[in-house]
Amino acid sequence: MSVTDELLENNARYAETFSGPLPLPPAKHVAVLACMDARLDVYRALGLAEGEAHVIRNAGGVVTDDEIRSLAISQRLLGTREIVLVHHTDCGMLTFTDEDFRDGVEADTGVRPPWRSEAFADLEVDVKASVQRILDSPFVPVKDSVRGFVFDVATGRLTEVG
Amino acid sequence: MSVTDELLENNARYAETFSGPLPLPPAKHVAVLACMDARLDVYRALGLAEGEAHVIRNAGGVVTDDEIRSLAISQRLLGTREIVLVHHTDCGMLTFTDEDFRDGVEADTGVRPPWRSEAFADLEVDVKASVQRILDSPFVPVKDSVRGFVFDVATGRLTEVG
Repeated sequence: MSVTDELLENNARYAETFSGPLPLPPAKHVAVLACMDARLDVYRALGLAEGEAHVIRNAGGVVTDDEIRSLAISQRLLGTREIVLVHHTDCGMLTFTDEDFRDGVEADTGVRPPWRSEAFADLEVDVKASVQRILDSPFVPVKDSVRGFVFDVATGRLTEVG
Repeated sequence: MSVTDELLENNARYAETFSGPLPLPPAKHVAVLACMDARLDVYRALGLAEGEAHVIRNAGGVVTDDEIRSLAISQRLLGTREIVLVHHTDCGMLTFTDEDFRDGVEADTGVRPPWRSEAFADLEVDVKASVQRILDSPFVPVKDSVRGFVFDVATGRLTEVG
């Protein structure tokens, strides 16, 4: 059985006790932008229940045009007003350089990625840069609370960067 | 107290019983790409534990260059081999058009977004299009299991598209 089939079996059990639907707009009016890292269970780590927060995730928890798109939709159409950014210790993005990554892809596929890998060398510097990208964007209307954190994968604890 | 501060208090309680660190590569070698919708708790809905799967999320659960970037890093550097795409019923992306969204942003900010909103008119069509964007990308090396689903926010159940 594939992992995907195993997850579908898990979902059938989840649905047995599921109670819905909840309203579409996030009840806590917050959007979380976090790394895709498997060890970061955003709902549990932040004590979120279903229906409370938008959760945007990607490799690194970085801010590219696509995260600005998601945040713009989140705020403009669904009323979120706070943004919580989460990077984490022991991140894969600290283990390579953009040049190496694109060289490797080009060597394997014959095509050089037209996008940057967004690899970074320092967690706190990248959290600050990610916050700044949001503050600098004309497309995210509400910027009163844009705060960045590092999640420690050893302790489960968030530390604010700022 | 802001919602962000409330989530930090929740995190302090979470950390009290947290046990880490787990290994960096996802134990189940799977990457999930899902909508940011607040009602979709990916870990619970798929029965995932911390450390098992990469979770990539954005408005719609769509596939743009940034999701290809995350999937390429997930597979090339961290060994995932299956991809699970999840859209859901009652999605905000079904409620507007790309033209309307960009017109609205331009009217409010004076700047037209250089990116598409990725709004869609039909869930199943967009799931298939998202799967196809992955299959068409030269940067995602492992495509043996790229499967798309719709999560029903009323029942909690996943239905496969395809």
